[in-house]
Amino acid sequence: MVRIAVDAMGGDNAPGEIIKGAVDAASRREDIHVYLVGREDAVKQGLAACPNYPKARITVVPASEVIETEEPPVNAIRRKKDSSIVVGMNLVKKGEADAFVSAGNSGAILVGGQMIVGRIKGVERAPFGALIPTEQGVSLLLDSGANVDARASHLVQFAQMGSIYMEHVIGIEKPRVGIVNVGAEEEKGNALVKETFPLMKACPDINFTGSIEAREIPHGGADVIVCEAFTGNVILKLYEGTGAVLLSMVKKGLMTSLRSKIGALLVKPALKETMKKFDASQYGGAPLLGLKGLVVKTHGSAKAKEVSNSIIQCVTFKEQKINEKIKESLEAKEQAAET
Amino acid sequence: MVRIAVDAMGGDNAPGEIIKGAVDAASRREDIHVYLVGREDAVKQGLAACPNYPKARITVVPASEVIETEEPPVNAIRRKKDSSIVVGMNLVKKGEADAFVSAGNSGAILVGGQMIVGRIKGVERAPFGALIPTEQGVSLLLDSGANVDARASHLVQFAQMGSIYMEHVIGIEKPRVGIVNVGAEEEKGNALVKETFPLMKACPDINFTGSIEAREIPHGGADVIVCEAFTGNVILKLYEGTGAVLLSMVKKGLMTSLRSKIGALLVKPALKETMKKFDASQYGGAPLLGLKGLVVKTHGSAKAKEVSNSIIQCVTFKEQKINEKIKESLEAKEQAAET
Repeated sequence: MVRIAVDAMGGDNAPGEIIKGAVDAASRREDIHVYLVGREDAVKQGLAACPNYPKARITVVPASEVIETEEPPVNAIRRKKDSSIVVGMNLVKKGEADAFVSAGNSGAILVGGQMIVGRIKGVERAPFGALIPTEQGVSLLLDSGANVDARASHLVQFAQMGSIYMEHVIGIEKPRVGIVNVGAEEEKGNALVKETFPLMKACPDINFTGSIEAREIPHGGADVIVCEAFTGNVILKLYEGTGAVLLSMVKKGLMTSLRSKIGALLVKPALKETMKKFDASQYGGAPLLGLKGLVVKTHGSAKAKEVSNSIIQCVTFKEQKINEKIKESLEAKEQAAET
Repeated sequence: MVRIAVDAMGGDNAPGEIIKGAVDAASRREDIHVYLVGREDAVKQGLAACPNYPKARITVVPASEVIETEEPPVNAIRRKKDSSIVVGMNLVKKGEADAFVSAGNSGAILVGGQMIVGRIKGVERAPFGALIPTEQGVSLLLDSGANVDARASHLVQFAQMGSIYMEHVIGIEKPRVGIVNVGAEEEKGNALVKETFPLMKACPDINFTGSIEAREIPHGGADVIVCEAFTGNVILKLYEGTGAVLLSMVKKGLMTSLRSKIGALLVKPALKETMKKFDASQYGGAPLLGLKGLVVKTHGSAKAKEVSNSIIQCVTFKEQKINEKIKESLEAKEQAAET
C-alpha cells in the first residue's frame, strides 16, 4: 500500500477539485491510501459530495490553517504549524506517509520540503522537476523553479536525479541529458554552463549528450533538460504561455468567416486529440527531487484529473525506490571522484 | 537618401534571396540606396536574374571572402579583411553607409559591430534587440543574444535603448518596460534581477512596469522585455521552437481523418491569416543597438521578404535619429545620477 498525503486546501480549485482528484486516484488504484489534509468540515463536506468513494482508503487528517498563495514561505512554514502543508509534510517526515502532493504555495512547498522532510544525505539542493510535453513524448525540465543562482555542482546532481526519475518513473532507457545553452558548441554559454559542461561530461551513470538549444526542447531534443531555476522557470512558463496564445489565436482564426466556421466543426475532434498530446496535466505534477520522502507540486490551477495523476505518479516513485537509487548514484559519483 | 550596405553572402539563402530582398526594398522605396557587398561575379549574376531593378540605386561592392556560419568570430573578423561582413561594416564606419544588414554569422556581426563600427560613447554593451510577435502586436526582446553574463548597469541601458527603439522606430508611445523574472513581486528573482530592479525603477525616461513572467510575454505583457542574453536567447529560440512544433502538430492533426481533411481545406485561408500575425519576419531583423551606425542581423534562414523588411526598417532608424536619441538618453541619466 502506498500512503499519500494530499493537501486538500492548496490551489485555485481547493478543496473541491483536490478531493475529487484524490477520490478518483483511490478508486483507480487499490494500492493507494490517501490522507486528505485540511479543514475537517470542508474536507468532509467535499467527500460527502463524492458518491461511493473507497472509505477504507481515504482518511481525513485535520489541519486548521491554510498557507495562502502569496504568503512569504519561510514565515508561513515556521508560524502555521497546523497548516495543511506543514501537517502533510510531517506525515512524510514521521514515515506515516510516503509522499505529499500539493497544488498550493510553491515557495512554501519548497521551504517545507527542505525544512520538514529534509534532503537525502549528499544532496546539495532539491530541484523541482517539471514534466513537459514534446513532439515525441515528454521531457523532464529541472530545475524548473526551486534554486535560482544554482552552482555547477548542483546542476550535475540535477542531471543524476533527473536521469533516475526519467528511467524508472517514466520508463525511458538511458535518458539523454542536455544542458540548456545558447548554442550547440562546447565553447558557447555563460559562466555557469561553461563550468558545468566538463563536470557533466565526466559524470558517470548519466547519458550526457551535450548542449541543448531552447529551440530543440519542444522537438524532444533531450529527455532530461538541466538548467538553473531562473532559466528553468522562464522555459516552463514561456512554454505554457506560447502554447496558450497560439491555440487561442488558432481558435479565433477559425471563427473569422462562415467557411472557416464550418471547417472548424469538422476539424474539432482531430484538433482536440492533437492538443491532448501537448497537455502537461496528464503527467501529474512536478516532483521536488532529492528529499527523504516524495513531495509533488501540481499546478495551482490543477483540476481533479491532474491531482489524480499526480497521486498515481507517487506509486511508481515508491515502487521503484527512487530515493534509494538517488543515494546510490550520488555515492557512486563520490567514489568515482575519489579514485 | 538612406544608404544601406547589405551582406550578399550571409545566411542559408545567400546570395539569391538576399539580392532579391535588396532589389525588392530598393523598388519599394525610392529613398534607399543599397550597397550589395559580396563576391562580384555571384552578386552580378544574382542581379542579372532580377528584371528591371533600379540600377541607379543598387551598387555592387566587391568582397572576395566569406565568413562561414560556424567560424569563430574574433579570428574571422581579424583575418578576413576582405569578407562581406568586414567590408560592409567598414562602409558604415567610414560614413559611406548608414546601416549594415546581414543574415550571416551572428558572432561575427556582434564582434565586428563592436570592433569596426564601435559603440556610442557611454554605451557599455551593445545588445541584440529581437522583435517578437505577440497576441497584441510586437515586443522588443533585448538582449536576445549578444552579452551573456551581463551586469545590472548594462540591463538598465538596454531598457533605455529599447524604449527609444520601440517609441521611434515601431511607434509605441511610452513603451512599457518589463524585466524578465520568475515572479511578479519585487522581492523575487536571481541576484542579477534583484540588483537591476531598483536601478530600473530609478531610471528617468523609461516607463518601467516591473517584473514580467515569461508566461506573459506572448500575451504582450510588456513592449520592451529586458534580460541578459542567456535568458534572452532561450526565450527567442523557445518562442520559435514552440510555435513551429505546435503548428506542425496542428497540421498533422488536421490530416488524421477524412472529416478533418475536408475541414482543413475550409479553415486553411483563415488559419494562414492568423499565423501571419505570429510571423516575426514581417518586422525585419534584430538591430544591434548602441553602435555608432546601425547594424541589423536577420535570421540565417531569411528569405527575400525578411531581407527587404530589414532594409526598410533602417530608413526609420536613420530618419528618427535613433543614435542621437540614445546619446541624449544616456547623458540625461548620467546628469540625473550626478544631481
